[in-house]
Amino acid sequence: MIGIFDSGIGGMTVARAVEQCLPDYSLVYYGDIAHTPYGPKSPATITNYSIKNTEFLLEKGAEIIIIACNSASSVATRTLREQFNVPIIEVISPAASKAIDCSKNGRIGIIGTKATVKSNIYTEKITTVRPDYKVYSQPCPLLVPLVEENWLNRRETKMILRRYLHPLKEKQIDTLVLGCTHYPLLKKLIQARIGKRVTLIDSSIETANFIKTFLKKNPETVNKNGDKQVSHTYYVSDRTETACKVADRIFSRPMELIQA
Amino acid sequence: MIGIFDSGIGGMTVARAVEQCLPDYSLVYYGDIAHTPYGPKSPATITNYSIKNTEFLLEKGAEIIIIACNSASSVATRTLREQFNVPIIEVISPAASKAIDCSKNGRIGIIGTKATVKSNIYTEKITTVRPDYKVYSQPCPLLVPLVEENWLNRRETKMILRRYLHPLKEKQIDTLVLGCTHYPLLKKLIQARIGKRVTLIDSSIETANFIKTFLKKNPETVNKNGDKQVSHTYYVSDRTETACKVADRIFSRPMELIQA
Repeated sequence: MIGIFDSGIGGMTVARAVEQCLPDYSLVYYGDIAHTPYGPKSPATITNYSIKNTEFLLEKGAEIIIIACNSASSVATRTLREQFNVPIIEVISPAASKAIDCSKNGRIGIIGTKATVKSNIYTEKITTVRPDYKVYSQPCPLLVPLVEENWLNRRETKMILRRYLHPLKEKQIDTLVLGCTHYPLLKKLIQARIGKRVTLIDSSIETANFIKTFLKKNPETVNKNGDKQVSHTYYVSDRTETACKVADRIFSRPMELIQA
Repeated sequence: MIGIFDSGIGGMTVARAVEQCLPDYSLVYYGDIAHTPYGPKSPATITNYSIKNTEFLLEKGAEIIIIACNSASSVATRTLREQFNVPIIEVISPAASKAIDCSKNGRIGIIGTKATVKSNIYTEKITTVRPDYKVYSQPCPLLVPLVEENWLNRRETKMILRRYLHPLKEKQIDTLVLGCTHYPLLKKLIQARIGKRVTLIDSSIETANFIKTFLKKNPETVNKNGDKQVSHTYYVSDRTETACKVADRIFSRPMELIQA
């Protein structure tokens, strides 16, 4: 069984991509809504929560853990790998690799939460492979609340996006990493503001592709369900109305969120 | 010693008012930044956190507890009063009383978080005393993140405020309760948008006044420091950069936040 956790419901964009990419695998999701958002919090606190989320998923039978949250991936991956004896997959590396592949002019933009941007992890991952590349990061702390409010097409959202993206546009980036699992819901608005020529990298899709390849190479890691029924179970640490609405929107179907 | 807790740093507007109003009393504050914000979370989760915050303050020597958070006041007051044997003061009643006193046309507006508005507590408190009054509530979930980002004078903030306040303006309210401790930092913008004739009620100031009267009537509740040094101690469950900045801004002085 594949285990996925997130600070809330944003990581469901990853879960959705995994469901589509790997239809034969069962999946258990844990959204830590009681502690959401992680983005503005400190690395120690985020790591603490990530350990508890992983323990929860292992108890439920997970054989591999996907950290479907850029903030947690940025600051907690090392600790989780030290503490737990299962593969820990994060969302940063697949997106960073894809950005390197896509960029032609070597100028890559990153948007994310404060925790993600402050960790500097995208810049490190990219410049380790390509020291000649320039990486420009922009924290966008208001985008998560705007998405959770479903203000996906409001004038205010467009203005705020313009303000956040302007510095990256000036740097003439040709590739932009959506470094937070909430941002794919704003993809169209972001593309319109950053310009058609900029390639957007969706960390959710890249992570799902990465897992698919990983499981092909390491088929023994996770039991395929075979003849048994495939199950997709979604747990949350707090069931709020907003979470239920955003979940329905992400999956384009009514979602059952189970209070853990 | 007076104990004050909040979901984060917004409740420091209450602490500041208490410091000014009651300079002879020691004060201990607990800001639950690790779980911030409370506003979008469920009553059960908010109550859970409120119990832990109260236990922390009692351990530190608090003899009276102020719930300096409208969301927690709305949903957790009854449970705290049942579980703890010290006076529990909330921020709703003082603001509701003041609103009743101030309104001439009997049309009162409330702005607050989702948790506060959904609890319907302001409406209940006001209409119990004045069944002839009309109360109009508006949840404003984006204001807390905007204040925490220090976007206090941005065009986007003004537009969002206009959108939130428009329905209340149409109802011709003459009194508006700032039903969240973050909102006093937006007082000028709110006044400009709702109109000069509308009286704004600041729950922080009303609560500080209420405590002052309460301690005059019940002087045995809290030990005054007498000759001893008065202490003001501020604890937080997570020390983030944003929290430190907002705290400095609220107190107009550099604040020391102690990691609990």
